[in-house]
Amino acid sequence: MYEEVLIKSQSVKKASGVLYNCTTAKKNSLLKAINLYLRSETPAILAANRIDLDCAEKTGLSKVMLDRLTLNEKRIQQMMQGVRDVVKLADPVGKVFNKVKPPNGLIVEKMRVPLGTVGIIYEARPNVTVDASVLCLKSGNAVLLRGGSEAIHTNKILVDVIKMALKDLKLPVGCVEFIETTDRAAVMEMLKQNRYLDVIIPRGSQQLISFIQENSVVPVIAHGEGNCHIYIDSSADLLKAEEIVFNAKTQRPSVCNAAEKLLVHEKIATRFLPRIAARLQLAGVEIRGDERTLSIIRNAKPVDESDWKKEYLDLIIAVKVVKNLNDAIEHINQYGSHHSDAIVTGSKANGEKFLREVDSAAVFVNASTRFTDGYEFGLGAEIGISTQKLHARGPMGLTELTSTKFIVHGKGQVRK
Amino acid sequence: MYEEVLIKSQSVKKASGVLYNCTTAKKNSLLKAINLYLRSETPAILAANRIDLDCAEKTGLSKVMLDRLTLNEKRIQQMMQGVRDVVKLADPVGKVFNKVKPPNGLIVEKMRVPLGTVGIIYEARPNVTVDASVLCLKSGNAVLLRGGSEAIHTNKILVDVIKMALKDLKLPVGCVEFIETTDRAAVMEMLKQNRYLDVIIPRGSQQLISFIQENSVVPVIAHGEGNCHIYIDSSADLLKAEEIVFNAKTQRPSVCNAAEKLLVHEKIATRFLPRIAARLQLAGVEIRGDERTLSIIRNAKPVDESDWKKEYLDLIIAVKVVKNLNDAIEHINQYGSHHSDAIVTGSKANGEKFLREVDSAAVFVNASTRFTDGYEFGLGAEIGISTQKLHARGPMGLTELTSTKFIVHGKGQVRK
Repeated sequence: MYEEVLIKSQSVKKASGVLYNCTTAKKNSLLKAINLYLRSETPAILAANRIDLDCAEKTGLSKVMLDRLTLNEKRIQQMMQGVRDVVKLADPVGKVFNKVKPPNGLIVEKMRVPLGTVGIIYEARPNVTVDASVLCLKSGNAVLLRGGSEAIHTNKILVDVIKMALKDLKLPVGCVEFIETTDRAAVMEMLKQNRYLDVIIPRGSQQLISFIQENSVVPVIAHGEGNCHIYIDSSADLLKAEEIVFNAKTQRPSVCNAAEKLLVHEKIATRFLPRIAARLQLAGVEIRGDERTLSIIRNAKPVDESDWKKEYLDLIIAVKVVKNLNDAIEHINQYGSHHSDAIVTGSKANGEKFLREVDSAAVFVNASTRFTDGYEFGLGAEIGISTQKLHARGPMGLTELTSTKFIVHGKGQVRK
Repeated sequence: MYEEVLIKSQSVKKASGVLYNCTTAKKNSLLKAINLYLRSETPAILAANRIDLDCAEKTGLSKVMLDRLTLNEKRIQQMMQGVRDVVKLADPVGKVFNKVKPPNGLIVEKMRVPLGTVGIIYEARPNVTVDASVLCLKSGNAVLLRGGSEAIHTNKILVDVIKMALKDLKLPVGCVEFIETTDRAAVMEMLKQNRYLDVIIPRGSQQLISFIQENSVVPVIAHGEGNCHIYIDSSADLLKAEEIVFNAKTQRPSVCNAAEKLLVHEKIATRFLPRIAARLQLAGVEIRGDERTLSIIRNAKPVDESDWKKEYLDLIIAVKVVKNLNDAIEHINQYGSHHSDAIVTGSKANGEKFLREVDSAAVFVNASTRFTDGYEFGLGAEIGISTQKLHARGPMGLTELTSTKFIVHGKGQVRK
């Protein structure tokens, strides 16, 4: 029944050997060809998307999900702009670095190489089909895609478009494969293909990601929760602090790098808290405070111990008054999710201490946690954000889709 | 029953927070203190080792295993030299690199940080207890050890020695914990501790490593088989080629970086093969050849298709005559284990092509595959060799025991 998964896993593995040695010029030509077909096939893509949307409306998909599923002229234009951006990115493959000359007379270096094959498991957004494929292809990786059932018709035609471009460039069409079986057992089967897949990157809900992490024999690079903190130090510029907290909480509360917790130094709590609380509450944010916070501001609910570990993804923020920087760091390392945390401070020493001691994928001095993002961090593009410590941590760009090998030049040396 | 595993996993996790911010000076003082106790406790260590050896002799452990288990004055001296070598190594933790200034005005950099907690699962050699602990501690990681039952008394006293040093330095003794339960179910329990362990590094037989890879929820960095190739190009200096093949096959045939396969360009096969075959056979090496090889040399057995994928770890080599460099690369990528492969050539272009196109952890031009090793590659020390593509590939030193985080300096920036 799940032969499809096995056959397509073998297909990407076989194709990956060709991509491994593909020149940058050829990979860029491939991306440009994909864009040509995205343009010429736009009517067909929109028609396929219409079928998915009709099904989704009948099954009563939520408005948010329908919006994620929807393609239109503008969104296809954005997709094409994304592809053009990736064409411009430097190719990490083939880069040689870390030259060492040990006493044995060898010259030992590292060379950056593709990972080989990447599995992407994602949900409703069909743009991931193109975005993720293009990043994998540019970094020399073949890719096995498994998208959500809601977007099946859209995804299939987008993969067809990519395969047309692969054919034109005389590259194996197996460089990009798409699993058409839509039940979860097909995902389960994909998680067993460690002979053919080098890594799986899940994109979607925490529920999907946890399921994949727990069941995969293939290594997974996963994006965990974002229980992000902002700590306002006693020396902070309180106007800046207010802007940063307001931005990090309200600019897009549903995303992983939105702030969920506010820690305030006790010396400035009575000056800072009433101001930021009023502004947040005016924007509809619910404030949950510890005892000291409640003694300073009105209309706040008491915080629960379980709040400190929660990722709300909503207009809610929990607030705690802390004694000092050490207390703030300790709280963040204990209760945080090690995603993104920020300090607002006027003290260079305190800023550096925070950056060093907070154990998170991204740590900020005097900036909003909302900046944790591949584009904002100058990576050019993003295949996802890792909250793991192995291989990749934080926003992942092309380099994170590569591995290395040791290359060694000798003059006939043998081991003694 | 396996509460020990849970409690000790929690203990290393807790201790790792202290090690995360430990200065290089303090970590070096710790290593020096370990060495002082290794010296002062040598009689007690040897007495404990005597108990293990007595048990092992009674249960009829093989000579090779007994040798691996044995400590003596000289081996403890070597252990101490190993610790001194690690003291001298540069501390990777805290290093800041990859500075980027994206258009948003932020300064984005990466900082190297400890992984956190490392699980080491190993077999008879008690020196791993000290070697692995010291590498983990120097890179700021707490470590949970699980050694073989044969070495239990030796391992326990070595861990006591490390804990004495931790106490002296006022560091948590939980920085190094040792699982005393010796059955395999305790290993199974350790593989579930993904809440507390960041990575598991198995050291030992392929059987042990496969078991761990298949069953671990904790990410594993594993060392697979070494089916290593040497390809002799038509332009090779045949004297050098002979030395390299002889060294890679015979110098230590039981290890992963020993050569198992010899590929020879057809143009030089009749000149090269009789010479190397005679020398190898004189050293007791069994030669298994393809048809063309058998037509050139005597006393060779015919090779079986299954031979091409085998890691012999013995005085056996399989030989194939190939048409050209492309055939050699294709054969290696198809049948090899992606560990270590070498070309002997007089052509710079062919050497570079081989380095680029062979997809292995270490690729060599004009040198023996036996050099795949942390010390020989200038890493200073080695916690193991990875044949994976994620996180670390090839010999792993201190840097491979670290992760990174993004550190971001702003001036009050918020996301638009």
